[in-house]
Amino acid sequence: MAIDLAYSGETADLIKRTREFTRDVVLPIEDEFGGNITEAGGDELRVRMQDAAKAAGVFAPHAPVEFGGHGLNMSDRAPVFEEAGYSLFGPVALNIAAPDEGNVHMLAHIANPEQREQYLAPLARGEVRSAFAMTEPSPGAGSDPSALNTRAVRADGGWRINGRKFFITGADGAGFFIIMARTSGEPGQRGGATMFLAPADTPGIRVGRHIDTLDRSMIGGHCEVFFEDLLVPDSAVLGEVDRGFEYAQVRLGPARMTHVMRWLGAARRGHDVAVDYVAKREGFGSKLGDLGMIQKMVADNEIDIAATRALLVRACWELDRGEHASNSTSIAKTYAAEAIFRIVDRSVQMCGGMGVSGDLPLARLSREVRPFRVYDGPSEVHRWAIAKRVVGAAKRAQADAR
Amino acid sequence: MAIDLAYSGETADLIKRTREFTRDVVLPIEDEFGGNITEAGGDELRVRMQDAAKAAGVFAPHAPVEFGGHGLNMSDRAPVFEEAGYSLFGPVALNIAAPDEGNVHMLAHIANPEQREQYLAPLARGEVRSAFAMTEPSPGAGSDPSALNTRAVRADGGWRINGRKFFITGADGAGFFIIMARTSGEPGQRGGATMFLAPADTPGIRVGRHIDTLDRSMIGGHCEVFFEDLLVPDSAVLGEVDRGFEYAQVRLGPARMTHVMRWLGAARRGHDVAVDYVAKREGFGSKLGDLGMIQKMVADNEIDIAATRALLVRACWELDRGEHASNSTSIAKTYAAEAIFRIVDRSVQMCGGMGVSGDLPLARLSREVRPFRVYDGPSEVHRWAIAKRVVGAAKRAQADAR
Amino acid sequence: MAIDLAYSGETADLIKRTREFTRDVVLPIEDEFGGNITEAGGDELRVRMQDAAKAAGVFAPHAPVEFGGHGLNMSDRAPVFEEAGYSLFGPVALNIAAPDEGNVHMLAHIANPEQREQYLAPLARGEVRSAFAMTEPSPGAGSDPSALNTRAVRADGGWRINGRKFFITGADGAGFFIIMARTSGEPGQRGGATMFLAPADTPGIRVGRHIDTLDRSMIGGHCEVFFEDLLVPDSAVLGEVDRGFEYAQVRLGPARMTHVMRWLGAARRGHDVAVDYVAKREGFGSKLGDLGMIQKMVADNEIDIAATRALLVRACWELDRGEHASNSTSIAKTYAAEAIFRIVDRSVQMCGGMGVSGDLPLARLSREVRPFRVYDGPSEVHRWAIAKRVVGAAKRAQADAR
Amino acid sequence: MAIDLAYSGETADLIKRTREFTRDVVLPIEDEFGGNITEAGGDELRVRMQDAAKAAGVFAPHAPVEFGGHGLNMSDRAPVFEEAGYSLFGPVALNIAAPDEGNVHMLAHIANPEQREQYLAPLARGEVRSAFAMTEPSPGAGSDPSALNTRAVRADGGWRINGRKFFITGADGAGFFIIMARTSGEPGQRGGATMFLAPADTPGIRVGRHIDTLDRSMIGGHCEVFFEDLLVPDSAVLGEVDRGFEYAQVRLGPARMTHVMRWLGAARRGHDVAVDYVAKREGFGSKLGDLGMIQKMVADNEIDIAATRALLVRACWELDRGEHASNSTSIAKTYAAEAIFRIVDRSVQMCGGMGVSGDLPLARLSREVRPFRVYDGPSEVHRWAIAKRVVGAAKRAQADAR
Repeated sequence: MAIDLAYSGETADLIKRTREFTRDVVLPIEDEFGGNITEAGGDELRVRMQDAAKAAGVFAPHAPVEFGGHGLNMSDRAPVFEEAGYSLFGPVALNIAAPDEGNVHMLAHIANPEQREQYLAPLARGEVRSAFAMTEPSPGAGSDPSALNTRAVRADGGWRINGRKFFITGADGAGFFIIMARTSGEPGQRGGATMFLAPADTPGIRVGRHIDTLDRSMIGGHCEVFFEDLLVPDSAVLGEVDRGFEYAQVRLGPARMTHVMRWLGAARRGHDVAVDYVAKREGFGSKLGDLGMIQKMVADNEIDIAATRALLVRACWELDRGEHASNSTSIAKTYAAEAIFRIVDRSVQMCGGMGVSGDLPLARLSREVRPFRVYDGPSEVHRWAIAKRVVGAAKRAQADAR
Repeated sequence: MAIDLAYSGETADLIKRTREFTRDVVLPIEDEFGGNITEAGGDELRVRMQDAAKAAGVFAPHAPVEFGGHGLNMSDRAPVFEEAGYSLFGPVALNIAAPDEGNVHMLAHIANPEQREQYLAPLARGEVRSAFAMTEPSPGAGSDPSALNTRAVRADGGWRINGRKFFITGADGAGFFIIMARTSGEPGQRGGATMFLAPADTPGIRVGRHIDTLDRSMIGGHCEVFFEDLLVPDSAVLGEVDRGFEYAQVRLGPARMTHVMRWLGAARRGHDVAVDYVAKREGFGSKLGDLGMIQKMVADNEIDIAATRALLVRACWELDRGEHASNSTSIAKTYAAEAIFRIVDRSVQMCGGMGVSGDLPLARLSREVRPFRVYDGPSEVHRWAIAKRVVGAAKRAQADAR
Repeated sequence: MAIDLAYSGETADLIKRTREFTRDVVLPIEDEFGGNITEAGGDELRVRMQDAAKAAGVFAPHAPVEFGGHGLNMSDRAPVFEEAGYSLFGPVALNIAAPDEGNVHMLAHIANPEQREQYLAPLARGEVRSAFAMTEPSPGAGSDPSALNTRAVRADGGWRINGRKFFITGADGAGFFIIMARTSGEPGQRGGATMFLAPADTPGIRVGRHIDTLDRSMIGGHCEVFFEDLLVPDSAVLGEVDRGFEYAQVRLGPARMTHVMRWLGAARRGHDVAVDYVAKREGFGSKLGDLGMIQKMVADNEIDIAATRALLVRACWELDRGEHASNSTSIAKTYAAEAIFRIVDRSVQMCGGMGVSGDLPLARLSREVRPFRVYDGPSEVHRWAIAKRVVGAAKRAQADAR
Repeated sequence: MAIDLAYSGETADLIKRTREFTRDVVLPIEDEFGGNITEAGGDELRVRMQDAAKAAGVFAPHAPVEFGGHGLNMSDRAPVFEEAGYSLFGPVALNIAAPDEGNVHMLAHIANPEQREQYLAPLARGEVRSAFAMTEPSPGAGSDPSALNTRAVRADGGWRINGRKFFITGADGAGFFIIMARTSGEPGQRGGATMFLAPADTPGIRVGRHIDTLDRSMIGGHCEVFFEDLLVPDSAVLGEVDRGFEYAQVRLGPARMTHVMRWLGAARRGHDVAVDYVAKREGFGSKLGDLGMIQKMVADNEIDIAATRALLVRACWELDRGEHASNSTSIAKTYAAEAIFRIVDRSVQMCGGMGVSGDLPLARLSREVRPFRVYDGPSEVHRWAIAKRVVGAAKRAQADAR
């Protein structure tokens, strides 16, 4: 047993093919439509790109082999997802975009055989999209999930759900919803949530407006969703009643990391574009890339990329060992979200006027990555959680010493 | 004689009225159209808002009194422009948006009586807009003005101008252009530029595409402009031949500062929106605004606002005394561009998901202010200029000591 | 009335003479003894330097004219103190070091005629030193003054004081103490403190060990002080009973600013040393000072110096107008303490191995300035106070709007 | 083959025993003497601690097994050295302090059998100390090794060496020197250096003054060393003539990483002390460690520790595979030196007045870690090297595409 950071030959090959597929097939489409996936074709484009990904043998690297995926563990997903993320449309092409990728991951862990057949299989194959309906408008569940307001109450042979959700990614056009609702306890208490599965056309589900956000590359947008006397049968319960928060953790740790992987790819693209620019552009008597202040930005980008990747390796390895990895995923997510923003921001700066224009992809990348410091837990919430563990341990040690 | 930072009663009154006008009349329009001035009505809206500003007695605070302005010096412009900048549309309403405001300033200093009548007077009154055609695409004049490529050569009774300009703010719809062209020397040499005035409908002037940039609030966009055998008479020369770079300095120092004033207003609005949000929003058992990590962001914003304002006071005072103030305007601009970005970025973060959405103005403010670190000289160029002065002085002192 | 940042001719002259005195007379002594004032001679050196300052006409710029000072207001102190601070020993030479300078300021405002004669006059003239005994070890009054633990209780014809103080600057060798003690209320409550004056040789005052701190330039060190059944008469009360916290504010706002002035001078010296070094030292094919990454550090230092100075101007002007200026002094102090640290840290870095060695003064400057982020209120406490005001105002505005 | 970050049982055991030895045996000595190793006993203390380490079975984890070491590769050294670094004296106790540890590493790779016997064996066993004489005063070899000025010229049966060295760690008391001297080419050229071995008592070697630096924990100080007609035989040549720069690389990459390991341990100790403090200390109505601004500092420390460790794992793994790892060691060193400084600086800040005093170890830790941003290549030089590779690759790619 010894430290090893090498990928198997098979994974290395998938990394390489994903890189080529992303750059040759996907990136030109992203650039043609300025990164706006709705304008580029939305679900029609998705199906077309996914067919190409299947043909190239790079489709669904994360999905169980039985459903046509490559069955990669978290450690191996990291470099593959990063390559896919090099284009903002790459994750959609490989069927590893949020929230479908995280939903596949969670369903593979929790769904019963019938649910796997009905929901997981078509999702893994790219036949439908899905949505994860957890976050709510103020004063409901936002950064603090315990504020969950949506309620499911027992009804004849099942449950009746009422509530309003907010920022539900991919809701418009989703084939089904995973719904987080309170089945016991009161808002502000940690316990008592349950997850439900429901086809999107179930009466009582209404998708409202798209929230206009800085990012533009998510199919189906970030929507308001209303559950109005939505009736679901007992078989709609995912896992067990009142264990929803626990299952959310199963989803959240890995989902944080796959966000990092994809966005790291996007940041690397920004960096590459900027390095290419400064290596070429003359100014002040030399290439811009030979000037010290530009070199500093290039080096800082390299450092941020390396550190993000290294933290990702650690967190993924812990997850693959079956650990909760709450601390290392919080650390990796917090560092990455800020580093990725810095990388893109420096890349913009290196390119000056071109950097803030649509003539290069940097301006749109800067918009795409900004929300990552908020999505999947704001940096402040992660820092709070990290510190609480450390300070709490110190308090306990002090108490023990007394 | 003693340090005094108080504004006169007259100025204090104008500050107050500008604040009220901006919040009551202008801000609602900005918010209705999400800060997109073209969608909000473009020049038609401009005229309407300027009429309202005239009625409110807040129009053209910077313009000479003879042309209907208030004739404020730089020191007094600072707080007034900041109030106008509180709305992204405020500067247009008061006729103090870039580039018109800087052009009024420069023409008031350099234009001869005929030019004042033909160009300055209608510009100051808001009857036309203008453009300042200096920057060029690579390898021409960008951050390094000495690379100026556009040429004017003697022609019968005047000059023939050929060249291509880039990022020319307000070009689409401008009534006239101030054109920077090389009349002697070669690209890479500092000397030999001349400024020319030309009505926009002069044959040989062609406005090309709008460059798609992060910011959206500048009327007339940032355009490509082509000069193709443009013929101008000798009377089109602004000031004297070959002194263009010198005049550009007259414009640049103050123009940098008025940029800071306006954008500082925008940053303050972002901060106010965020503070209002965290003072209201519950989370983690208290108001967000009572949590330490949020308090840190609030305080850092206050510090950045105060420091920006204080540096501005210094630079404006030097300019009002007739100094070049190259150093203090570079310092104020560099600090401000980065501080303003930080302020808005923190404000976004404080509001979480709302911050990156169109439900609050923060996402659009974050897009508006990002380019300021590039426009009017990237931070790197200013830092280089600041350091060169200091290190150069040290070298001279060492040589003297030998 | 208009913005004016110029100093009067008289002040300008004092600035110039202070600069020359500091560099010609004081700095060589500091450098000879590596900034360790105890090794350099302690109080004996102090008297010698103060005599020289008197001869040079630069002594006691802050003290009332009636006691031989120049009677400068806060605005005029700023540049004079900065020049004195250029040497770590300069403030002692001019009798404007902490805590004496702040004590002169406070006594001039609050002491009655007898106290002025007995304490203020000799202090202003440099005949004695003083100490301000407020801070206490945990769980007493540290960053949070309301935790004040030292108690004064009525005794026959006066007060009996018991308590333990900590980090009392200048205690060893001080001629008298200003003692903050609780006369009503309980620790944790804001009210109920009184200030007492007592000669150092009063029975019941015991000066303990010097706390070993990073800084070395304060005469009399930072000591532990014990009050053990210390009896003082009623005439020892400074001002009125139970108004101690209020008087502390009179002292704290200005004292914060004079700290900034002095330390800014020290930071400027560090910067000058570094600029001189990089202007001379060859490396990588040019002078270090012509390399972009070094230029960035030089420019950032210039920006930090300018911003600190500008914030100081603002806060001093408010204080001179008789305002509390709690917000602007907190802002200036917080920004300055961090900026001054950055300036010195960058200066160290510019000089590489020399920077961390005793061959240049930078290593010792880096030790001197670090504590400023803690002394006179840690940055976190100032930020908390700044944010509380802003968020509190927003809450009140929301309540009013309801 | 798959990613694995687990240590073998044997290594895990050595980590644990090193941790216990450091905390139980070494740390109390460091604390007693305030981290000043000279005052604590110098070489006498070293021998005593090393005997204890041998008894505890934790001595020389890095040295070849044949010389009594544990023969750990770089990956396994990382956690062991970090545990030793938890005390500033720990590395000396385990015989893994700079420069001996790097010298052992290099000699194990390059020395011939006689040299191994004469120099490596006693060094590995702790019988002597050593010095690596490379850096020189300006204008010689500092950050830019190609400026090497010390010369070795052919002399009867060997070489005559003349030159002056600077910042030679451990020189005072070293048993032998490894000397870098120019044997061909001119200063400013990269080639032509040779390494020589010489016992410290060879005539012509003179150790000058100790340079007074911020750090205090290195035995033998940082000295000036003079080579004055030093005569060494041909057998003194380490490896081959003119390959000195190449061998220096063999030493530098790993030596950078072991510096990081040790200093990371020191930073962790600082963090632990601060966390313990804030978990206990009351203020503002709660434990300091429950306040948001403190929590932010705690979390940022955790993130910096995790990222440093993760980058170290990567670089060590590359080195263990036999790669040059210039890029990943530069990245890890640059990130680590800055992160370690931040960690200690935040720890100081968390403890307020106690943090800047000798009552806690933080003030001395802050002095120890500051030079790391300079030692072993200033951050600026590493960033320059990182950027040159990236921009150079982009230029080549552009040339290929033409």
